[in-house]
Amino acid sequence: MMAEHTVKAFDEDITRLRGLIAEMGGLAELAVQQAMQALVTGDEALAAEVVARDKKLDALEMEVDAMAVRVLALRAPMADDLREIIAALKIASVIERIGDYAKNIAKRAPNIEGRNRFEPLTLLPAMAELGAEMVHDVLTAYAARDPITAREVIERDRKVDAFYDSIFRNLVSYMVENPATISSAAELLFVARNLERIGDQATNVGEVVHFMVLGTYPTDIER
Amino acid sequence: MMAEHTVKAFDEDITRLRGLIAEMGGLAELAVQQAMQALVTGDEALAAEVVARDKKLDALEMEVDAMAVRVLALRAPMADDLREIIAALKIASVIERIGDYAKNIAKRAPNIEGRNRFEPLTLLPAMAELGAEMVHDVLTAYAARDPITAREVIERDRKVDAFYDSIFRNLVSYMVENPATISSAAELLFVARNLERIGDQATNVGEVVHFMVLGTYPTDIER
Repeated sequence: MMAEHTVKAFDEDITRLRGLIAEMGGLAELAVQQAMQALVTGDEALAAEVVARDKKLDALEMEVDAMAVRVLALRAPMADDLREIIAALKIASVIERIGDYAKNIAKRAPNIEGRNRFEPLTLLPAMAELGAEMVHDVLTAYAARDPITAREVIERDRKVDAFYDSIFRNLVSYMVENPATISSAAELLFVARNLERIGDQATNVGEVVHFMVLGTYPTDIER
Repeated sequence: MMAEHTVKAFDEDITRLRGLIAEMGGLAELAVQQAMQALVTGDEALAAEVVARDKKLDALEMEVDAMAVRVLALRAPMADDLREIIAALKIASVIERIGDYAKNIAKRAPNIEGRNRFEPLTLLPAMAELGAEMVHDVLTAYAARDPITAREVIERDRKVDAFYDSIFRNLVSYMVENPATISSAAELLFVARNLERIGDQATNVGEVVHFMVLGTYPTDIER
């Protein structure tokens, strides 16, 4: 058993790690929202801001990694505490990837031509909102150590997948009917795919939260 | 300092972890090659085999995770040894993702229509080969603890990115000229993107190898 002052120091470390992850989550959620706004409105300055701010997420991931390694080395935690540190490592890398998807979406903003008359753009915001909500809710589940909400988020991923399939079919039909807009529609195919991957990543976080709290990965969910 | 029998047990653990990662790497490389073969030839049985075999990669990743957690808990390794365990955790999750990209490519195989007359299919195998080589070489660098080769693989990612840009432009032009094939060409856009991501993942492994051996991430490489 750890001595009392070690336990206190460990608790402080965990609190700091959780704070870093909450900061990462907030940045990732904002990145998804602003990337979509830049895409829909064509605001290139906002798109550039999203791309530039992604470096902050990369730096925070490295900070989580460094801190987790230090805690493992200094305190050699066991059982629940060890799972907590492993979970922080995994969740940080997943959030960093969500930031990458948002950055990819923002980078496509300047490539949409004639966006005011480009109907397919209207298909994506609802899908993006669903994805951003999953990210938000699964990080709330992480903060609250709540495996029930984590599972609920995992189950929600099916809706994002169904959204993606429908948007894919829609975009391809649109391309066939409007060959002049193929290049812009191809950009939106990738945006839809990035949003679908954001849902997958929220699902991954949900699985890690389940593992962190209960020690097992959820296995009986249809995906 | 660890007692002699603990050092020996730790070395055995590391050898086992490295063996699991080598097994994962071999499966991922095979998956990329067979997925491309299924895509190009339309061999749906092979595509289904790639998809089914991906579960093995998922299981191996969980085995690496479980073993790494056990080693951290039992042996509380420090410095180099701790970095070795963290590297195994990270690399396992990256290889699992490479397997997912291969699975995604395999799933698209049945969706290519009239493949014998579909020129764009000829653009992709060279790009896939470059990606599979990066995966192979970076895992050799991991096995040999060789940061020089790791850096060299990281630098090679620029070629994959250039390939991707050129294929994207080619496919969009092809769609404009051949609207009847848009649906198949859209599938290939995603395949090209998956291959580009495989290059990114090999790069991520290269960074982890650098970190594992030298304790720092490479920072001065233009990407």
